[in-house]
Amino acid sequence: MRRKKTATLLITCQDRKGLVAGISEFLFGHNANILHADQHQDGTLFLMRIEWDLEGFSLPVSEFARHFEPIARKFGMQWRISDSDSKKRMAIFVSRYDHCLVDLLYRHKSGELDCEIPLIIGNHPDTESIASFYGIPFHFVAVSPENKQEAESRQQDLLKRNGIDFVVLARYMQVLSADFVSKYKDRIINIHHSFLPAFHGAKPYHRAFERGVKLIGATAHYVTEILDEGPIIEQDVIRVSHRDAIEELIQKGRDLEKIVLSRAIRWHLENRVLVCGNKTVVFD
Amino acid sequence: MRRKKTATLLITCQDRKGLVAGISEFLFGHNANILHADQHQDGTLFLMRIEWDLEGFSLPVSEFARHFEPIARKFGMQWRISDSDSKKRMAIFVSRYDHCLVDLLYRHKSGELDCEIPLIIGNHPDTESIASFYGIPFHFVAVSPENKQEAESRQQDLLKRNGIDFVVLARYMQVLSADFVSKYKDRIINIHHSFLPAFHGAKPYHRAFERGVKLIGATAHYVTEILDEGPIIEQDVIRVSHRDAIEELIQKGRDLEKIVLSRAIRWHLENRVLVCGNKTVVFD
Amino acid sequence: MRRKKTATLLITCQDRKGLVAGISEFLFGHNANILHADQHQDGTLFLMRIEWDLEGFSLPVSEFARHFEPIARKFGMQWRISDSDSKKRMAIFVSRYDHCLVDLLYRHKSGELDCEIPLIIGNHPDTESIASFYGIPFHFVAVSPENKQEAESRQQDLLKRNGIDFVVLARYMQVLSADFVSKYKDRIINIHHSFLPAFHGAKPYHRAFERGVKLIGATAHYVTEILDEGPIIEQDVIRVSHRDAIEELIQKGRDLEKIVLSRAIRWHLENRVLVCGNKTVVFD
Amino acid sequence: MRRKKTATLLITCQDRKGLVAGISEFLFGHNANILHADQHQDGTLFLMRIEWDLEGFSLPVSEFARHFEPIARKFGMQWRISDSDSKKRMAIFVSRYDHCLVDLLYRHKSGELDCEIPLIIGNHPDTESIASFYGIPFHFVAVSPENKQEAESRQQDLLKRNGIDFVVLARYMQVLSADFVSKYKDRIINIHHSFLPAFHGAKPYHRAFERGVKLIGATAHYVTEILDEGPIIEQDVIRVSHRDAIEELIQKGRDLEKIVLSRAIRWHLENRVLVCGNKTVVFD
Repeated sequence: MRRKKTATLLITCQDRKGLVAGISEFLFGHNANILHADQHQDGTLFLMRIEWDLEGFSLPVSEFARHFEPIARKFGMQWRISDSDSKKRMAIFVSRYDHCLVDLLYRHKSGELDCEIPLIIGNHPDTESIASFYGIPFHFVAVSPENKQEAESRQQDLLKRNGIDFVVLARYMQVLSADFVSKYKDRIINIHHSFLPAFHGAKPYHRAFERGVKLIGATAHYVTEILDEGPIIEQDVIRVSHRDAIEELIQKGRDLEKIVLSRAIRWHLENRVLVCGNKTVVFD
Repeated sequence: MRRKKTATLLITCQDRKGLVAGISEFLFGHNANILHADQHQDGTLFLMRIEWDLEGFSLPVSEFARHFEPIARKFGMQWRISDSDSKKRMAIFVSRYDHCLVDLLYRHKSGELDCEIPLIIGNHPDTESIASFYGIPFHFVAVSPENKQEAESRQQDLLKRNGIDFVVLARYMQVLSADFVSKYKDRIINIHHSFLPAFHGAKPYHRAFERGVKLIGATAHYVTEILDEGPIIEQDVIRVSHRDAIEELIQKGRDLEKIVLSRAIRWHLENRVLVCGNKTVVFD
Repeated sequence: MRRKKTATLLITCQDRKGLVAGISEFLFGHNANILHADQHQDGTLFLMRIEWDLEGFSLPVSEFARHFEPIARKFGMQWRISDSDSKKRMAIFVSRYDHCLVDLLYRHKSGELDCEIPLIIGNHPDTESIASFYGIPFHFVAVSPENKQEAESRQQDLLKRNGIDFVVLARYMQVLSADFVSKYKDRIINIHHSFLPAFHGAKPYHRAFERGVKLIGATAHYVTEILDEGPIIEQDVIRVSHRDAIEELIQKGRDLEKIVLSRAIRWHLENRVLVCGNKTVVFD
Repeated sequence: MRRKKTATLLITCQDRKGLVAGISEFLFGHNANILHADQHQDGTLFLMRIEWDLEGFSLPVSEFARHFEPIARKFGMQWRISDSDSKKRMAIFVSRYDHCLVDLLYRHKSGELDCEIPLIIGNHPDTESIASFYGIPFHFVAVSPENKQEAESRQQDLLKRNGIDFVVLARYMQVLSADFVSKYKDRIINIHHSFLPAFHGAKPYHRAFERGVKLIGATAHYVTEILDEGPIIEQDVIRVSHRDAIEELIQKGRDLEKIVLSRAIRWHLENRVLVCGNKTVVFD
């Protein structure tokens, strides 16, 4: 699938009259052909995503900031721009459960995830072979209660040296420290195997089984300091019945986890997700 | 839709070899044509539902118990039989939110719910007109913290005098006392407007909105002493987004509530639901 | 639910640079506070929906056309404006199956459908009582192969005299003439009881049963001259199994039909639907 | 997941009183502990699936036929027995689209598909590397209009020499001859990328896009002589909108295809699927 070269602007600021007019005038003034524009009001907050064709756009993306800054200042905007040519760099953290990893690597290879994957970090050696099949460097970093701080510092070092933009926890069974999380605010995506806020914490499928729910779910969210409480990006569910033993719940859940996580990553890559308090706005 | 005259037997007991053979021999011995049979093992527990055509069955339903008792005793069964000719008698409790009530009354009239509705009990007078449109007696019983016990005794009196088999709380905004609940064990069905166990308790749509979930749900369950903790009969969800204000969540939720509650009632009427610990087995 | 007073502008034209800037400048120039704006490119076609708060807007809606016309002409726009104060007038056509009618009347009464319903036209007298319960005038117009033209002219006369904006066929079992349809282009909404294009034409549930599909569906669409071929507004499905006899398919389908039709009507009322060739764009 | 050793009996015959009793008496007589039993009436046809624990069962599976034959003859049964110890042997046919293949190989490796995969047959060489990663022999058989008969005879030869029980067409873009199909009646599973019967034949996503449907689907079915008309085993759908270009439809569809095909295979492996005319009964 050949993609157009585009730029995407994400904006958050206090709502004010003239915002949309100001932004679109600026873009039109530089000959932009707007492909998509979407906005949302959350209380007094204004959030916008606007994507335009770079063909014919008269401003090099590298000079965008300098020209846009006066408008941004006038309206008190938080903003960022991405262009489709500079691919985001994603790291994957994984433990022994490899279904999400395998799924992501195939999606990446088949062109569905438009990003670089400079490295995979595993705390079990088992997933090295699939990483190597897809030609992605794999780093084994053992994590134990004793060496946690040291392990994290090695992980962070790897992230830095590889210029990583964001981290995906693909069923990574370790809790990251508050310090780690704060360094990658809104840039760590986790997949939790329940329909949050139901069954947050450990062993959600076992607890879903015990409670006798008729649907099980999965939730992709940005990681915050408080476990399983970060802004939700995507969720989905599947029907289960009394016939499903815990093993079947886990098996059905794997399909959910793969799909929900990959959707969240795709939206993150396409700059569709804006965090707004403890919630997300996902522009579709 | 003309329905066959059938009998349905529900059985719970410790699993033992020869159970299925014993039951089917007994039925065959009385010339039953089995239409559906379904069973389930939950640990060491055996649960079964078996439905047969009453045409040609050589045993009057009224004499079934006497003949079946020796088998039931041998295997230590808890069992009950229903025949499709004797319709269950359902009471509906309702407050001001009338969407579930209106939905149930139409389903009843159109033949979808095969039961009697001898009465509706409301703690607001507003729903009397729709009850009267469908020709169902309506009883207004005001409930306040001061008169709760008295109100419940009036309600229970109405239930008794009308030979009520089970009660549906169709968005009835009052908590029934433990005493009331214990008298109708596994015979009070409530609709909760969230995907339990998420957002149990009050104002679930508001809390779903605040948490930023991407799906909202509804749950039909049998009422137990502990609020929103009873055995779940049915659940369903619908997708929401950041565009949905609380009003839209409530509106989307109404459709869920109507459908989930009506399914639970239909299954209860068709003797498809067996309570097993704090879970249900729903034979489909 | 108190709604803001808003105006909504729907635009279709050939895509050109400066469109969004031109429109938003115009609105900003008249002090509009834009609440939602959404756009779409379909090939070289540009489609837009923009909604703004009428509070503080300096142009009376009645004078909008005169001021906006120069811009519209410049870009070759097809456009229409609606304001939330002038409610659309909807007529409902119905036959003997009354589940969609009953559903729509309740939704209207509870404030979910923000429109006027000046009349219901039925070709069976059975639905008069529910119409009268909700205080909506009911007109019985018998239709037979012999009197079809005459019946349609009586129907059209009723529509005209009541200033009807659009017509809903709520399981109306008659095919309207090409002449009738052409007079209400993109203003007649039908509910078909299958997942179109599967099982177009008659008896879709019977044919779904025979084919052994595992899901059944319903489709709301604008009516065109060619039966069941008009632009699809909304569709949904529900799971069925070998256990479901045709009666159960019909029963499950009723819930689908009600929900799918009511969604389509709501989106039509909120000016979210733009027809584009034989497809629709539904701005959410 | 450790599985119990079980045997499963599938039965089809004309419905008659005493059938269930006859079968369960026979099993009880040989000390079977029945784990699941399910039955269905389709008109006058009786279909049954019964699974029991082999622990304690007094009859070796190899001698089952001889002992069961008198009962089978008495009731005119078509029947087959499978035991969980003798794994089915599955061949996968694939073209260039490899997403279903990759998905199946991972599910197989992770224990989700309890079968042998003695070989993969591809008419493009591209999928050899993934086959070899999972250690499955890959056979390249080029197919062209000129060599079709010869290619099929080579394929059939491979199937025979490998003792293949059933064939999965994992997006295999060739139509098998009537002769081939007849040799593997109810033993070739295909995945079609639409919600059949909508968009049977070629390029279903393109046609779904043109028709403007709001949901796309996938269908797994047994292959018959008539293209896309065989008995449906499983279907599912996903929501799409005007924002989805054909590429997105294809991408969303891939997830559907993988899940729908893998469910159908799992049910086939677990002896849950009985063909009944041109439909299936799937015992869950």
